[in-house]
Amino acid sequence: MDDRTRVRRQPHRGIYDRAELLTLIDGLPVASVGYCAQGRPYVYPTLAWREGDHLYWHGSAASHSLRHIAEGVELCVNLFAVDGLVLARSGMNSSVNYRSVTLFGRAEAIVDADSKRRALERFIENLVPGRWADLRPITVAELKATTVVRMAIDEASGKVRNGPAHDDEADYALDIWAGVVPLALEVGAPVADPRLRPGVAEPQYLADLEFGEHA
Amino acid sequence: MDDRTRVRRQPHRGIYDRAELLTLIDGLPVASVGYCAQGRPYVYPTLAWREGDHLYWHGSAASHSLRHIAEGVELCVNLFAVDGLVLARSGMNSSVNYRSVTLFGRAEAIVDADSKRRALERFIENLVPGRWADLRPITVAELKATTVVRMAIDEASGKVRNGPAHDDEADYALDIWAGVVPLALEVGAPVADPRLRPGVAEPQYLADLEFGEHA
Repeated sequence: MDDRTRVRRQPHRGIYDRAELLTLIDGLPVASVGYCAQGRPYVYPTLAWREGDHLYWHGSAASHSLRHIAEGVELCVNLFAVDGLVLARSGMNSSVNYRSVTLFGRAEAIVDADSKRRALERFIENLVPGRWADLRPITVAELKATTVVRMAIDEASGKVRNGPAHDDEADYALDIWAGVVPLALEVGAPVADPRLRPGVAEPQYLADLEFGEHA
Repeated sequence: MDDRTRVRRQPHRGIYDRAELLTLIDGLPVASVGYCAQGRPYVYPTLAWREGDHLYWHGSAASHSLRHIAEGVELCVNLFAVDGLVLARSGMNSSVNYRSVTLFGRAEAIVDADSKRRALERFIENLVPGRWADLRPITVAELKATTVVRMAIDEASGKVRNGPAHDDEADYALDIWAGVVPLALEVGAPVADPRLRPGVAEPQYLADLEFGEHA
């Protein structure tokens, strides 16, 4: 662990176990990808997924950012989810429950068409297990128009906060309500496409879909 | 609008109206703050709030990142929420519904204690309206231990996707289910603190709390 991945603030919240870190990543589909270009910072959001020891994401081959990233520019990627509002008896001790992973390193493009197809299959299947087989097969032109990149999960750290507020000892005597308000990204009832062909049933795999992992 | 804030990919998804942009920001409490130090990128998540023409966020005065930010380093801040999985008939046209705002610029620290207190009150009240008055008042030492920064909402752009999939015309004839799976950050039932004083009732303001804005 080098200096950038050591959790400096609130070190007890750091996740240092490798298996735990990978599980944490699997529950965090939303990533913020940061890089510098001409000394200026850029951050953009994307969906990411893990396979083995790599974090993957994708986008249009026409994307400025992805072209830059595929060239191997240095990256900082943060995966984050908020799990609750921690309402302490003071503002100072109020907080949020959350899960966060930060990766440093460089990405590489997946060039080979078969590997790209397999990576995209993995992406879709991670999000909506069972979906890939239903889709109109991906074409060579579509694969060409898509950039898939991956980054080794190497210089990485996780940080998690959960549980109740930690108030100042004296504040526990106050008649102030304290507690946690849970927040969770819930999956709603699927809304069928207005141009859905008559008789096409909602797939069974949508019945118990989840997005990310709840704390 | 300069080159960095023009929405290059899918320009029809860009939000260029100022009032609409500010409303969009108000519905996006989770921010990813990016900056470069010694040419390397750093991204970290935080809760942010708006007052007037500024985006605010805060943290420990001991935070490395915030000290850097308060010194006026160049920033890229992205606010993001995912609102749904758009399941098209092809992988290529599958997408997510989302709201995203990206700001460029520099931040400044709020130094004056009264302004800092007011900013933190605004933060708490934005998250949980009615909460501030209940809290044990913030102390001078706590204010000193907290850094509040703000950044002008100046070089900024918003991007929103909502609605159904846009399939290739030929794909509409296929017997594949398509539609949108809504995702929303839901507020759960408050969990009282294990050390709550007997007789302290759950505040009324928690009854219809929301976090962020749903699409």
